[in-house]
Amino acid sequence: MTEHRQLSHPVLARPVMVDGGVTAPGGFRAAGVSCGIKRAPASGESTPLDLALVVADAAVPAAAVFTTNKAVAAPVVVSRVHLARSGGLAAAVVVNSGCANACTGEAGLQVARDMAAATATAVGCAVEHVLVASTGVIGVQLDAAKVSRGVDTAARSLSKQGGDAATRAIMTTDPFPKSCGVRISTEGGAFTVGGMAKGSGMIEPRMATMLSVLTTDARVEAVVLAGALRRVVDETFNAITVDGECSTNDCVFLMASGQSGVAVTRDDDPAFIDGLRAVAGHLAREIVRGGEGATKLVTVTVTGAQSHSDAWLAARTIANSPLVKTAIHGGDPNWGRLVAAAGRSGAAFVLERASVAIGDVPLFVAGTPHDERADQAAAVLRAPTVTVTVDLGTGGPHDATMWTCDFSAEYVRINAEYRT
Amino acid sequence: MTEHRQLSHPVLARPVMVDGGVTAPGGFRAAGVSCGIKRAPASGESTPLDLALVVADAAVPAAAVFTTNKAVAAPVVVSRVHLARSGGLAAAVVVNSGCANACTGEAGLQVARDMAAATATAVGCAVEHVLVASTGVIGVQLDAAKVSRGVDTAARSLSKQGGDAATRAIMTTDPFPKSCGVRISTEGGAFTVGGMAKGSGMIEPRMATMLSVLTTDARVEAVVLAGALRRVVDETFNAITVDGECSTNDCVFLMASGQSGVAVTRDDDPAFIDGLRAVAGHLAREIVRGGEGATKLVTVTVTGAQSHSDAWLAARTIANSPLVKTAIHGGDPNWGRLVAAAGRSGAAFVLERASVAIGDVPLFVAGTPHDERADQAAAVLRAPTVTVTVDLGTGGPHDATMWTCDFSAEYVRINAEYRT
Repeated sequence: MTEHRQLSHPVLARPVMVDGGVTAPGGFRAAGVSCGIKRAPASGESTPLDLALVVADAAVPAAAVFTTNKAVAAPVVVSRVHLARSGGLAAAVVVNSGCANACTGEAGLQVARDMAAATATAVGCAVEHVLVASTGVIGVQLDAAKVSRGVDTAARSLSKQGGDAATRAIMTTDPFPKSCGVRISTEGGAFTVGGMAKGSGMIEPRMATMLSVLTTDARVEAVVLAGALRRVVDETFNAITVDGECSTNDCVFLMASGQSGVAVTRDDDPAFIDGLRAVAGHLAREIVRGGEGATKLVTVTVTGAQSHSDAWLAARTIANSPLVKTAIHGGDPNWGRLVAAAGRSGAAFVLERASVAIGDVPLFVAGTPHDERADQAAAVLRAPTVTVTVDLGTGGPHDATMWTCDFSAEYVRINAEYRT
Repeated sequence: MTEHRQLSHPVLARPVMVDGGVTAPGGFRAAGVSCGIKRAPASGESTPLDLALVVADAAVPAAAVFTTNKAVAAPVVVSRVHLARSGGLAAAVVVNSGCANACTGEAGLQVARDMAAATATAVGCAVEHVLVASTGVIGVQLDAAKVSRGVDTAARSLSKQGGDAATRAIMTTDPFPKSCGVRISTEGGAFTVGGMAKGSGMIEPRMATMLSVLTTDARVEAVVLAGALRRVVDETFNAITVDGECSTNDCVFLMASGQSGVAVTRDDDPAFIDGLRAVAGHLAREIVRGGEGATKLVTVTVTGAQSHSDAWLAARTIANSPLVKTAIHGGDPNWGRLVAAAGRSGAAFVLERASVAIGDVPLFVAGTPHDERADQAAAVLRAPTVTVTVDLGTGGPHDATMWTCDFSAEYVRINAEYRT
């Protein structure tokens, strides 16, 4: 039960980490600027960045995955329409933080359209080649004039070095910026995948709660790009949770400049999937590590499930359980809460054959407690990264791995004080 | 959308509150004692009560509802078997706190059986007429010798006045004891319903997370009793949540002594349902009010749902949302979080026609924000009881009401420190 599952595709070329994040692949420039959407800082602090642009040298193949929340934010509506109209092409992604432009009615929709139009003018592309995203407080109107000024400033400062500023400009309560880049060498040549992301509350599976912009200089058609993105999102961004919430604004965008000359023609291309998974997986785990109030990154592995959906159901229930997450926060090897969460998940569960381990320490083996190992497990829980493994005891062959964080009083403080 | 739903049965006789809790109805005595299962207290504090007995004058009709968790605690297994064997008769309920006797394997099952046997001997009834329950930490063996001594002491101190001690003996992290009694006058005479309950974490709908013993002196056959209990549990104990968890030990027991002479012959008898609902509803709301770290009792009403299940799905998602619960804790009228929770619930939801009110203050009406009323709503949130109403905007006729509490840093503190 402690073995990790095999990757579904053989790895042909190990991705190598490179600097530059979202602008690491050839053909992309970025910028992050301040345009006054976020509150003015206390005196002495620098003005917070709140508008990011990521721009391709031309309209290039693009794909996206959006929130499953039925309360969809205005920028998501606009981005969906643009991607459909363009047939999967994009030249720019514009993102503001500090205001989600969600639940803002017809007025908010017009601001999202204006934001795309301002970007199209500033970077010189068709309006349907602009993808729009917003993150921040729900239900507040976004100031179109501020956005427009911000877009103009950002467009003038676009650069290959702008990935870092762009990454910081999409942060809300994130404790640190999240970016990643990898280089993949194949027989046909080398290409790069890069990306940036923001968390940090409302993080849940099923196209969860964050924004991410991914880029690559591989040459990939839009339909192949969409298929590859869907595959990778399911086991990266959709396999994380901070608080079980799913926002109105979640988006992952992926653009392919083709500048490396390396062609990817299948959505299960092992090297491309591997590179994409490396970047998306890293960003997803960084989102969890930077979850609101989080002090630990927790890997939840469920084994012995009767079905694929049972494995994910149990993993998701454990990863969202407030009692499991507070126990881990307190360093308490309270395996009973793991059993209780698995038992209530709805997945088939056989208590008499179920097992629980914290790290490599089995605390409950085939229905029998081993509390004599509690001190050993408590020592494991002192590390900043922790793995918990639950075998459902059905003898089934299915497993699932999710990433979550512990649950601290700081989460409550952040979310009780976020707006007022 | 602010109207409350009608009770499904007309009220024939308003229940009148009476003292005495679980021993208020004729034919029941109770006791609560200390037998050393809970940790020894700090010096100067009194020894905590940890074993409760509720005993009928003879074996009487009884019904129960148990946890839906697949990791079922030993006492639940034993109580199910006893109720089946006796054909719905019970003479005694024995409950210990401080140890859940859950995930304790065959050894734990034997302790639960011994607990029933000791009770049968002490009170002089058949062993299958004893119902057993435990609450406390999961995965720790229960000391059968301590239980046996406790049962003997309790049996010797049974009295009509013992309901209060019994109620305190089943508490774990509960901040206050929970008991209730009502008297119902009908054309055929008067009868009484009483009860006690404990919370206070792992509280969730779907036969959620607590223990409760209910009693009545109405004359009701076991099959009618079971039907009435099921009806009432769905809209009381199953309509509350503290943290979305469902324990391994949840039970509600109901015994009918018949001593009032008033016969109840149908499981939808309006007067009996009304009395039972009054007691179970009060205890359920008290469990929420005493939820771990709770400072507010929150009523969540969902209207405009396309189906019964959609109404409950949306209400449950809102009532369990950490972001909604922390906003209410912080006194923040952040209606956007209510919209986001409803939108991700899976229930049909039409953003453009959806509405949200906090108390009587509409903050989002048919898709349009009314933030000019935010101060008014913030004032409403200062009260210890708060109602939030979300209309899903589908135009459907279904609604649901659940009770939850706010989410405080104290919840995290309690659950990070509970065991270690």
